[in-house]
Amino acid sequence: MQKGLFITFEGGEGCGKSTQARLLADFFEAQGREVVLTREPGGSDGAEDIRALVVKGDVARWDALTEALLMYAARRDHLVKKIIPALNDGKVVICDRFADSTAAYQGYAYGEKALGKETSDALYRMVVGPVRPDLTLMMDMPVETGLERALKRDANVNRYERMGLGFHNRLREAFLKIARNEPERCAVINAARTIPEIRDEILNIVRERLLR
Amino acid sequence: MQKGLFITFEGGEGCGKSTQARLLADFFEAQGREVVLTREPGGSDGAEDIRALVVKGDVARWDALTEALLMYAARRDHLVKKIIPALNDGKVVICDRFADSTAAYQGYAYGEKALGKETSDALYRMVVGPVRPDLTLMMDMPVETGLERALKRDANVNRYERMGLGFHNRLREAFLKIARNEPERCAVINAARTIPEIRDEILNIVRERLLR
Repeated sequence: MQKGLFITFEGGEGCGKSTQARLLADFFEAQGREVVLTREPGGSDGAEDIRALVVKGDVARWDALTEALLMYAARRDHLVKKIIPALNDGKVVICDRFADSTAAYQGYAYGEKALGKETSDALYRMVVGPVRPDLTLMMDMPVETGLERALKRDANVNRYERMGLGFHNRLREAFLKIARNEPERCAVINAARTIPEIRDEILNIVRERLLR
Repeated sequence: MQKGLFITFEGGEGCGKSTQARLLADFFEAQGREVVLTREPGGSDGAEDIRALVVKGDVARWDALTEALLMYAARRDHLVKKIIPALNDGKVVICDRFADSTAAYQGYAYGEKALGKETSDALYRMVVGPVRPDLTLMMDMPVETGLERALKRDANVNRYERMGLGFHNRLREAFLKIARNEPERCAVINAARTIPEIRDEILNIVRERLLR
């Protein structure tokens, strides 16, 4: 049985994650692999119901820990119902955001009100256990550019897009720090380039790290 | 400043928790105390939104860990927005279900699929921290009687009421075990009696343990 592959895209708002996730899915499909293209929060019926609670409403609707528990509840459902069965079937699972987003948003970017790394890691161990992405693509770009793009794209600006520059700068910092701490899993991608340039770099990394 | 009191009611379906919680609230109000009568899952706006995800739908909608994470997300919101501020104001908080229900339902009654005590306790420490009920009234009665009452009461039978006798027997066992392990916090109440009999016993316990 062919081994499944678990690839995640991470990064701030408007940095092109979903576009590149789609292009990477096309690449694997062209190679005859079965691909599950999915996203968090959400990705399974139950998790999408939970997602609705998190992305809508006031900025201050939830405190960081409540929000992280909701994210991990959604993640658990997504893992059990979709990700783990697909990996067991040898499929390529490409996920737009995963646990690094919780670590960066609720764990760090909330500043003084953030969870911190210890609680964030404890939730990961409790809920995700031994599952770990084979590759995480950290889409990095200047915060202002990403937010501008996200605001242009979304008719309904979501809770996170309304959180202010300080929040988004800490977010970028958090993702880069995760990538520095786990270089064997993560690759930082300069996302301030054209779509084909970024895609080509991602395909090179995938070929080199996962397909040799 | 007068010290707040935190009193919880626990037990299976149909054992009269909400009736007795209401009567206990009346008692404290007659004494001139400010009372917050509340319930879980729910009790705050956000937690009631989460509650709707948990009490409705298929029996197998969520696995035990997903459900426990949702329960603790709701609990966190309820604590931060309502319980802790009320206790800090010296009020009496009477809550129909609290963390023992998660320990008993998701932690134990799901049998082989249950979380277990370790994960259940870890969630408590992470989310509730040092907060602990001053008194927990464990409403105990034969499972068949309780279910019969609950089914008679509810036009829409909820997810838990449909879980079968094995589940509800383990549930009862779990609550009694918690009471045995923490006798200084818990009192087991024989709930297979009349409403005034039960109320009088509860008032005696409250006077003896909390008001002397």
